[in-house]
Amino acid sequence: MISVCGPNEASERELDAAFNVGRLIAEAGHAVVCGGRGGVMEAVAAGAKSAHGVTIGILPGYDPSEANSSIDYPVPTGLGHARNAIVAASGRAVIAIGGGFGTLSEIGLALKMGKRVVHIGSWDLEPERLARFEGDGAVYISAKSPEEAVRLALDGPT
Amino acid sequence: MISVCGPNEASERELDAAFNVGRLIAEAGHAVVCGGRGGVMEAVAAGAKSAHGVTIGILPGYDPSEANSSIDYPVPTGLGHARNAIVAASGRAVIAIGGGFGTLSEIGLALKMGKRVVHIGSWDLEPERLARFEGDGAVYISAKSPEEAVRLALDGPT
Amino acid sequence: MISVCGPNEASERELDAAFNVGRLIAEAGHAVVCGGRGGVMEAVAAGAKSAHGVTIGILPGYDPSEANSSIDYPVPTGLGHARNAIVAASGRAVIAIGGGFGTLSEIGLALKMGKRVVHIGSWDLEPERLARFEGDGAVYISAKSPEEAVRLALDGPT
Amino acid sequence: MISVCGPNEASERELDAAFNVGRLIAEAGHAVVCGGRGGVMEAVAAGAKSAHGVTIGILPGYDPSEANSSIDYPVPTGLGHARNAIVAASGRAVIAIGGGFGTLSEIGLALKMGKRVVHIGSWDLEPERLARFEGDGAVYISAKSPEEAVRLALDGPT
Repeated sequence: MISVCGPNEASERELDAAFNVGRLIAEAGHAVVCGGRGGVMEAVAAGAKSAHGVTIGILPGYDPSEANSSIDYPVPTGLGHARNAIVAASGRAVIAIGGGFGTLSEIGLALKMGKRVVHIGSWDLEPERLARFEGDGAVYISAKSPEEAVRLALDGPT
Repeated sequence: MISVCGPNEASERELDAAFNVGRLIAEAGHAVVCGGRGGVMEAVAAGAKSAHGVTIGILPGYDPSEANSSIDYPVPTGLGHARNAIVAASGRAVIAIGGGFGTLSEIGLALKMGKRVVHIGSWDLEPERLARFEGDGAVYISAKSPEEAVRLALDGPT
Repeated sequence: MISVCGPNEASERELDAAFNVGRLIAEAGHAVVCGGRGGVMEAVAAGAKSAHGVTIGILPGYDPSEANSSIDYPVPTGLGHARNAIVAASGRAVIAIGGGFGTLSEIGLALKMGKRVVHIGSWDLEPERLARFEGDGAVYISAKSPEEAVRLALDGPT
Repeated sequence: MISVCGPNEASERELDAAFNVGRLIAEAGHAVVCGGRGGVMEAVAAGAKSAHGVTIGILPGYDPSEANSSIDYPVPTGLGHARNAIVAASGRAVIAIGGGFGTLSEIGLALKMGKRVVHIGSWDLEPERLARFEGDGAVYISAKSPEEAVRLALDGPT
């Protein structure tokens, strides 16, 4: 499974990237995990479904109908923002697309958990500080396209 | 999705019931959510797979390989015992099979969330106290067989 | 710290017991941890404050003002029902007073964590099943009075 | 309560800043909430105790003895990295000192929750992206000294 994160409110360009990231993950035979709601989360799930992939949505509330219509398996955690830690933990790698503070927290949590995080147009983090803390699997990489992002996410250790 | 809970260490009879519960949920076209580990959780997932169902395991730790081999989608939450709340929240109904204190907590959490809980040989709860708190969807019912348990679980509101 | 759990809606007798449990815990020099809201949680906190004790409330939401007015330190977790696991984990022992499904889940979680749980008029659990799972610190004991409850809670291993 | 976050492994300068931040929060009459462990978390708690303040440690595991010796009230959550969400949620403002990926996640979570985050030598975040998402209480401010950090943290809405 590959986790994808990004905001509820996203630009056309981000939504387009998310759709293609979802499609490519599904075509590579992996399931998509995301926060299950709108914006980037909806686009990545729709992309995965367009390639007959499987989608899991880790929801902040208790109502499974909060999930967007492309989520196969909604997991209504009721954990509020703490559900971001589960999104980060669920993928063997994380792809971040655009995004604000929720996405920033998922990037931090995933890196703390020693995961590879690939981003398309998400937060630029200070190179020197990153270099001090990266290692043991934790690496933060910028990708220029959905193709590069998915390739870099799958390149990492299984 | 239907949640199934029960202990890591279970009797032959409980494992048998769990396998059949898993099989029947899958045959009815639903996914099984469970705690993802051994005992009842492994048997119910194996039963679901025997009928080509889908299985999701909500794990207490961060390592997806802690999931039993019949789990399609492991969700490694890292939440420890608090993951029981997510198992309880994920199904539209919960089936409890046998079980000790972890299962007791999942029964309590699911009832608190207003869910229908059907059990096969799990905790007998005081009828008068139950009656005082049941309602708004929360009901605790004993079933004599896997068939009855799955029928009662699916009978509830969607 | 000693955790105390019980429902938002409680009888006069339960509220009275809770107040005295809080007072006695404080007099013994311990802090009270509870769910921070009304009913038993409010009464136990008020009792602790009457004896100049310290009270910590583990809240389900994000708003610290949800805490009752006797809570010194509200911890707004935002975790919903999963916050019950933190209430159970925070005390070296747990005292349950009356209570419905939320309290049942806290009893189950605390016993699963290997804690001593003393109750005053809470769920009667099946003696044979209890005996099978008790051990390693996990024990479920009925107390007849606040004095007995606090004594039994403090008697356990530190 | 004011939350303070920062890494287990910190420089002398960061530890010194943390001690003074803790001292100043206590002198202003507030409690300190932190992750309860070593490094910045230990220094801020020691600083608060030096001024007779109160310290609460939100621990990732179940063992209260994991808390550093300046923590008055350890809250052993068992939630792993998801406990960062509770650290972020517990303070009316958050002060970040130095820090790696865990601190980054707490910054993201606190900003997502609409909190004021003041940092001393923590992550520099892109000004344009910040400006797009700040608002509704969420603001990320750099402070040059412990005095300035505590003043800015307390300046915000109560």
